[in-house]
Amino acid sequence: MADNAIPARRITASDLEKFIARAFEAVDVPPADAKIIAELMARADVQGSEGHGIFRLPQYIRRIKGGAVNVKPKIKVAREAAGMALVDGDNGMGHLVMRFATEKAIEKAKTAGVAWVGVKWSNHAGPASLYASMPLAHDMVGLYLAVGNANHLPPWGGIDMLLSTNPIAVAIPAGDEQSIVLDMATTVAAYGKVKTKAQRGEMMPEGWMMDREGKPLTDPKRANEGFLLPIGGYKGYGLALIFGMLAGTLNGAAMGKDVVDFNSDDATPTNTGHAIVAINVEAFQPVAEFKKSVDVLVRDIRNSRRLPGVDRIHIPGEGSHAARADRLKNGVPLPEALLKALNQLAGELKIAKL
Amino acid sequence: MADNAIPARRITASDLEKFIARAFEAVDVPPADAKIIAELMARADVQGSEGHGIFRLPQYIRRIKGGAVNVKPKIKVAREAAGMALVDGDNGMGHLVMRFATEKAIEKAKTAGVAWVGVKWSNHAGPASLYASMPLAHDMVGLYLAVGNANHLPPWGGIDMLLSTNPIAVAIPAGDEQSIVLDMATTVAAYGKVKTKAQRGEMMPEGWMMDREGKPLTDPKRANEGFLLPIGGYKGYGLALIFGMLAGTLNGAAMGKDVVDFNSDDATPTNTGHAIVAINVEAFQPVAEFKKSVDVLVRDIRNSRRLPGVDRIHIPGEGSHAARADRLKNGVPLPEALLKALNQLAGELKIAKL
Repeated sequence: MADNAIPARRITASDLEKFIARAFEAVDVPPADAKIIAELMARADVQGSEGHGIFRLPQYIRRIKGGAVNVKPKIKVAREAAGMALVDGDNGMGHLVMRFATEKAIEKAKTAGVAWVGVKWSNHAGPASLYASMPLAHDMVGLYLAVGNANHLPPWGGIDMLLSTNPIAVAIPAGDEQSIVLDMATTVAAYGKVKTKAQRGEMMPEGWMMDREGKPLTDPKRANEGFLLPIGGYKGYGLALIFGMLAGTLNGAAMGKDVVDFNSDDATPTNTGHAIVAINVEAFQPVAEFKKSVDVLVRDIRNSRRLPGVDRIHIPGEGSHAARADRLKNGVPLPEALLKALNQLAGELKIAKL
Repeated sequence: MADNAIPARRITASDLEKFIARAFEAVDVPPADAKIIAELMARADVQGSEGHGIFRLPQYIRRIKGGAVNVKPKIKVAREAAGMALVDGDNGMGHLVMRFATEKAIEKAKTAGVAWVGVKWSNHAGPASLYASMPLAHDMVGLYLAVGNANHLPPWGGIDMLLSTNPIAVAIPAGDEQSIVLDMATTVAAYGKVKTKAQRGEMMPEGWMMDREGKPLTDPKRANEGFLLPIGGYKGYGLALIFGMLAGTLNGAAMGKDVVDFNSDDATPTNTGHAIVAINVEAFQPVAEFKKSVDVLVRDIRNSRRLPGVDRIHIPGEGSHAARADRLKNGVPLPEALLKALNQLAGELKIAKL
């Protein structure tokens, strides 16, 4: 969501990383861990996932200070078989836990062909595509599911928000083309988009939210009087439910009523659940052949005929690849309001400002 | 889609099965295989998946007679590792191939915890939930993806139908409650629903289809002037693409331009791709605990507060469980038009009628 309407300053990814690492070190996260978290959070901003990058830093720090997150977790494999593992994150920062779990999945998929790693006792880990994309470097497909950290979605026909926007991300390696990276919530709009509309004083289109009477809700300032709508009606409800059960219930992590709203609660562990699957292409066919097939498919889609008024047919992940190319060269644009909030945090933590 | 508006006769599942088996034997399918196919097709009708049960028999027989399907396939594991297998269906009936693949996934998941089995050189195999549900009896979760057998969906913004309604099905075992079974196409409506509307002379709601100018298409008789719409716009396009790549491209099966429309072609093998994943609950946590958590979640959802005018909050799979209970007791309702078509087929094949 790069937004040219809001004045922004460009900060290099390296400066973002160093700042984030300083902040975590200031709340007793070991330097090596702070560095890992910082690198992943900056990567989120670099790929254009602004709602899941440094924007979340004040909240993460607040929750660490509130005692909700363990800064010295003993992340471990709790259960294991040839094609799976269950990782216990010991309530550590989600980025640390998910990096551990994804590396485990990749390692196991090298011999098992496919490895499914479930995660419990984790926390918010940033954008889904961060982890789905990690297997790409090993010529593997990555598939990630998670239970969101706040319930904004009722079951279809209901008004009690028992479900989150439980996302799916899948990353598929290509040859000459860029990798395909799908990263989506199971709701029409993510809750962050609603907040952005409210900040700008804009109305939402019909179809994003509904009020408790079942009427369209288009004023984002009234967001707490209603709820998000799932994609495809009952189908999106089904996907949110199933993805949540695979990432949460199966792993003994929070799901349904047990989900803690990490926006309004700084003291309670969330027991966030995720699932990451690494699929080793080589186990199915020669990697070069597969990549060639992906390239052909991408080109067939991109070059296919378009509806009137459509300039380009997009491949999932194109936006992130473009953001990455721009931002690694020119820096990450940070809105002034965010910069101000981050530098206020720096003052509180007594660390060097951005 | 039980439909009370169309006169129907009730036929027992056992009579359906015997009839289907007779038909396949008449076109040289070995009796043991004919029995397996018949059992699965009748199961589709029993669970209410009418569009994927005996309704498809004339088409299946036509394609066998046309030489498109191999009636004596050597279905085999082409590649294998601890957490995966790739099954080569040798262009056999999809039901035979998918039963083989699902049994393989279940067998492997007993030791590997999770097993992902890809399938190539298969054919249309009936409803997705048939295979996703097979692991349930082993206290496993089943996850199924497939490439559909006709392209009705363009990429988002496009008009060339390069994608099918690529479905996902996930089945999750419960304790005292019924299992959760999601089975959905990634389009707002499946193509079968469009055909049904046309047969009845009814109009479609806006949102099902669009014409090549981007305008809503509501007359099902003009269906060939447009295409289906994905759930959630670009999100459903992304899901159809990704599910198709996991079930098709990864396995060396047809995807994109290579998909054969099995409705209009009786001679060309489809090289249909599927993926079935068996997830052994026991590898993650004690089965009884998991089932208890599922029961709690189901009840929390069912008992949650409803929108005005909503009688009941549904759990995915409820409709199928209800249809099964009714139809095993009272028989499967077959519309007179379908009965007539089936008995005409019986005449052609010189087998006993229904």
